[in-house]
Amino acid sequence: MSSDPLVIFTPSGKRGRFPVGTPVLTAARQLGVDLDSVCGGRGICSKCQITPSYGEFSKHGVTVAQDALSAWNKVEQRYKDKRGLIEGRRLGCQACVQGDVVIDVPPESQVHKQVVRKAASARAITMDPATRLYFVEVDQPDMHEPTGDLERLARALKAQWDVPAITADLSVMSKLQLSLRKGNWQVTVALFRAQADGPAKVLDIWPGLHEEGIFGLAIDLGSTTIAAHLCDLADGKVLASSGVMNPQIRFGEDLMSRVSYAMMNPGGDREMTTAVRTALNGLIQTLSTEVGIDPALIMETVFVCNPVMHHLLLGIDPVELGQAPFALATSEAMLLPAAQLDLSTVNERAQVYVLPCIAGHVGADAAAVALSEEPNKSEDLVLIVDVGTNAEILLGNKERVLACSSPTGPAFEGAQIRSGQRAAPGAIERIEIDAITKEPRFRVIGVDLWSDEEGFTDAVAETGITGICGSGIIEAVAEMRMAGLLDGSGLIGSAAQTGTERAIAEGRTNAYVIYDGTENGGPLITVTQGDIRAIQLAKSALYAGARLLMDEMGVERVDRVVLAGAFGAHISPKHAMVLGMIPDVPLERVFSAGNAAGTGARIALCNLAARRGIEATVRQITKVETAIEPKFQEHFVNANAIPHATDPFPELGQVVSLPVVNYNTRGEADGAGGGRRRRRG
Amino acid sequence: MSSDPLVIFTPSGKRGRFPVGTPVLTAARQLGVDLDSVCGGRGICSKCQITPSYGEFSKHGVTVAQDALSAWNKVEQRYKDKRGLIEGRRLGCQACVQGDVVIDVPPESQVHKQVVRKAASARAITMDPATRLYFVEVDQPDMHEPTGDLERLARALKAQWDVPAITADLSVMSKLQLSLRKGNWQVTVALFRAQADGPAKVLDIWPGLHEEGIFGLAIDLGSTTIAAHLCDLADGKVLASSGVMNPQIRFGEDLMSRVSYAMMNPGGDREMTTAVRTALNGLIQTLSTEVGIDPALIMETVFVCNPVMHHLLLGIDPVELGQAPFALATSEAMLLPAAQLDLSTVNERAQVYVLPCIAGHVGADAAAVALSEEPNKSEDLVLIVDVGTNAEILLGNKERVLACSSPTGPAFEGAQIRSGQRAAPGAIERIEIDAITKEPRFRVIGVDLWSDEEGFTDAVAETGITGICGSGIIEAVAEMRMAGLLDGSGLIGSAAQTGTERAIAEGRTNAYVIYDGTENGGPLITVTQGDIRAIQLAKSALYAGARLLMDEMGVERVDRVVLAGAFGAHISPKHAMVLGMIPDVPLERVFSAGNAAGTGARIALCNLAARRGIEATVRQITKVETAIEPKFQEHFVNANAIPHATDPFPELGQVVSLPVVNYNTRGEADGAGGGRRRRRG
Repeated sequence: MSSDPLVIFTPSGKRGRFPVGTPVLTAARQLGVDLDSVCGGRGICSKCQITPSYGEFSKHGVTVAQDALSAWNKVEQRYKDKRGLIEGRRLGCQACVQGDVVIDVPPESQVHKQVVRKAASARAITMDPATRLYFVEVDQPDMHEPTGDLERLARALKAQWDVPAITADLSVMSKLQLSLRKGNWQVTVALFRAQADGPAKVLDIWPGLHEEGIFGLAIDLGSTTIAAHLCDLADGKVLASSGVMNPQIRFGEDLMSRVSYAMMNPGGDREMTTAVRTALNGLIQTLSTEVGIDPALIMETVFVCNPVMHHLLLGIDPVELGQAPFALATSEAMLLPAAQLDLSTVNERAQVYVLPCIAGHVGADAAAVALSEEPNKSEDLVLIVDVGTNAEILLGNKERVLACSSPTGPAFEGAQIRSGQRAAPGAIERIEIDAITKEPRFRVIGVDLWSDEEGFTDAVAETGITGICGSGIIEAVAEMRMAGLLDGSGLIGSAAQTGTERAIAEGRTNAYVIYDGTENGGPLITVTQGDIRAIQLAKSALYAGARLLMDEMGVERVDRVVLAGAFGAHISPKHAMVLGMIPDVPLERVFSAGNAAGTGARIALCNLAARRGIEATVRQITKVETAIEPKFQEHFVNANAIPHATDPFPELGQVVSLPVVNYNTRGEADGAGGGRRRRRG
Repeated sequence: MSSDPLVIFTPSGKRGRFPVGTPVLTAARQLGVDLDSVCGGRGICSKCQITPSYGEFSKHGVTVAQDALSAWNKVEQRYKDKRGLIEGRRLGCQACVQGDVVIDVPPESQVHKQVVRKAASARAITMDPATRLYFVEVDQPDMHEPTGDLERLARALKAQWDVPAITADLSVMSKLQLSLRKGNWQVTVALFRAQADGPAKVLDIWPGLHEEGIFGLAIDLGSTTIAAHLCDLADGKVLASSGVMNPQIRFGEDLMSRVSYAMMNPGGDREMTTAVRTALNGLIQTLSTEVGIDPALIMETVFVCNPVMHHLLLGIDPVELGQAPFALATSEAMLLPAAQLDLSTVNERAQVYVLPCIAGHVGADAAAVALSEEPNKSEDLVLIVDVGTNAEILLGNKERVLACSSPTGPAFEGAQIRSGQRAAPGAIERIEIDAITKEPRFRVIGVDLWSDEEGFTDAVAETGITGICGSGIIEAVAEMRMAGLLDGSGLIGSAAQTGTERAIAEGRTNAYVIYDGTENGGPLITVTQGDIRAIQLAKSALYAGARLLMDEMGVERVDRVVLAGAFGAHISPKHAMVLGMIPDVPLERVFSAGNAAGTGARIALCNLAARRGIEATVRQITKVETAIEPKFQEHFVNANAIPHATDPFPELGQVVSLPVVNYNTRGEADGAGGGRRRRRG
């Protein structure tokens, strides 16, 4: 035995002695080395590519001769001629051990390869999707031992892949017989497991080796936008991402107006369900066309969404979510056939996984953020804010995690803002206002220059300057405050008070002109008193939610803030803090997680264990209901003011001297404001 | 403790001491007494009715006082007023123990009540259906402990009924919220279990107590007829039975012609699938209307059928079943939603169970016969023959069971018989021929008199005499043989040879007139030489199949013969044996099992464990393929003759003297026959 050749695999370092003639793939399997193979060692799938190393390896104490592996063979040559093979690579199922050898398994040949996420701070996703392809050779029928084709397929999958048991829908059964015979008793099956060790469901079957791959979708279904990632289920790569507006907007801009629509209109929920499902099918078609795949190869779809979107997607009337006690029809994760959601574009047997909801106001999107950002594994106390039409807020560490949702409204997304618009080319996304001159400079999405830099006018010609997006309005308000254009209560000063002609009167209030393109037929882009008010409401709601969780946790400060959401990725932490959106924390402790909900959906798509993980985590999260908590109202009112103590900027006497005014419900300054006008006059 | 009253339940004999005030239902549950309750002891379902006995019970050593139970209460009175209650009955959930008492649980109050089958020899069915109703009280939502309605329902079912876990389709989820609120947090759910201890699936939900019950169908899908029983899932009672012709007949009379149709016509299998599913929906509607139930209350359907019907029902192309090696798409039992079979009449979430197939030629109908007749539990060696267009044949005992299928063709069902017809009013079903006079007497379906009895002519006026059904033709052929009208080879003698004018010439062969109604515009009912030939082919196939199994088992005789099938129930064992349909066995050892396949379907409908049982049994049955077994051909040819040694009847010289002739493929007598004619002439 000890004279058998030594085989060492890198990077795992696993090693063992094997008889001469043992295929490398066999050795890898016996040692538990993570070496992929779809065809089961038949030399047709090429997944088991390895790179042998030759020479002296003092570290391993071996010298590898040039003939340590069997000679390059016909199967490998055929594969290389047909599909190409990187120089130095061998097929692990063909190359056999002849002497001591060191074998490297390149990342793409690993079954459980890792998908490195772009954000540096984020952990990698380990590939272990619920659906995988298996190439299998099935016994031919024998009338003396009659068994069905399905039973023989099951037996082959058990013997060749250790799949414990399989089930198949009728529609697969009808394809089964033809595929087996067409593939000469060799077929590829896509098997879906709901549980890691449970029976597998045959989602599809192809004659011979299916080489086109299979795909999955991670979909973040928001109130305003639907964002989808199309991923390769073999390696988790995002092949395309795309978003569309949620067509339910025509039934109501925010969640509660959609619930109202369902309440007031019989069949209204059904209308909204149909609208979103139709949009999903369109989006899936678009993504598939973009990547050039047959959408019938999409085997899985993971959804994350807030509770109202959740119910409307599933075809459940959301009215209970519009009134206390905000009862969900179901809070647990759901697994169902895509056909039940009328997703006719994907494979007819594709599976849908919907993450669990945390509470009636805290949805599967918040669960997805928790899956992506893992507050439950954090050593320090982290506050995670996913900003959307509703903000999902998570606070916690490995001891305990709290969650709530806060109705921020659509202002952060550029809605209900005079010059607001979606984050699209032409939108102002960054603003700075000179504290002395009160002059603004800004940047526009799609242009790399600031507005006061040379060449800006030419560069911006294509997109134009069309409005302000969510991150732009936050910066505008914070900069206005820092430049002394705004007092602590949020009131915009007049031209006289602020000393700039950019402050213009609008009825009884003032506005600040950021860009005047009217001379060239362009827009007049201003920040109005109404805009300030909308932002104040939104940021107060956000802040109050965070404070409520801090109260519940019994803390006065957090160690770290994570801004999530497509929008969160573009917010300037400094401006967010000046505005008072988030509790004070050192600037370097504020991080952007990008679209954490979408990432959570991708993780659940690529890793089956992550599904069980987040289901367990959600059960342990403490839910805090903002809507009925008196302290929330208190925090909300207290958060109305716009502080600026966290950032050093010149004290401007005239701003500080502006009296604090309250607004009445019509958005106008009340009596105190009147007093101010008198003083001004 | 020992001073607590003693409670004795009959008929179980279970006994225990319980504190004064214990409800009888509680005592029963603690002792494991089989006492039903749907409402969980809330006094509304009345399933827990019991009968207390008073007086001295020396057998039990107790004396039961009149106040042994708490007084008749308002809940019981309300129930009695509303729905009636048999005198002496109490509600087990209301009546509380006050002293020693003997309590009888009537059969209808037992959960696992037994359905006594009509046939005396048959065992009873123990009620334990896969789907049952549960009345449950669900916690109201609490926003401080947010859980979905479904999760609270699951918790209640676990606490109140020990249901381990539940799942629900989206369509149930949408009904869930409304039902809970409408029922004031009390609902009835129909739960389906695939496995006895597995999670339950919510098939439907109703506010409050659902009193209309739930139902199931046991369907025997034959090549020629579809027979269905509509059963109450609470007590297994057959509420109605009905049958329709299988509309696939227009695509081919027998199985192989339907397979050919599928082979020759693209989409032909789909046509046949649609035809049978449409017929099923019609049949279900008819049955429901007849009984006066909403077909949406049908929660389960069990199918038994031969392999070709099985595939065509499931929408699987049957072509593989038309050629060796006769590979089934799947042989195992199937569980699937009725919606997948387009059964739109039943509950939209109704479940279908299809019994396993034994082999490519031996279907789920044969499995159902095995479930009903249990050859695998037989002490003696039993031969079970289910006669249809194909005969399913089982041979075995508790040591070993063999199965095969034999292509008998439709002759036994009255098809391909000149005067043949379905078993319906007007059909001749019994025949006797006087061995001396050669005159027949017969009975007609729907009339209680023999044709030579007084009043027959009047009695038969309504139905008329329309033809001969399957059992009639068997008796006719056997009686013709016994009366010397037929020789051992099956040749009908001429009038000269047989000495009766009822033997008439038909071309080159003869026929025997059973009834001549032509004078009154009625039919001429004859048995032709072609009829004899068809019956010979059918009985030879049947006999050869049985012999083949006996060879395989290594036996020369069997202990017992069971004739199954709707047709089997009407066959006269004596005539079957004269004809040589079945191997010789003492006449008193031939039994009729009625529609054993249908009974098997009913057992699987009413008892979940029976499904696992037959699945295990089928795996152990040895399959014998007749189509490729040379010995089958041999037995078939040898079985062509019509013996008559088993029955004592007068030897008729002129019959014995008839030479044996062979028939050519046109059904005419060949050269030997010519010789015979010459001799005759």
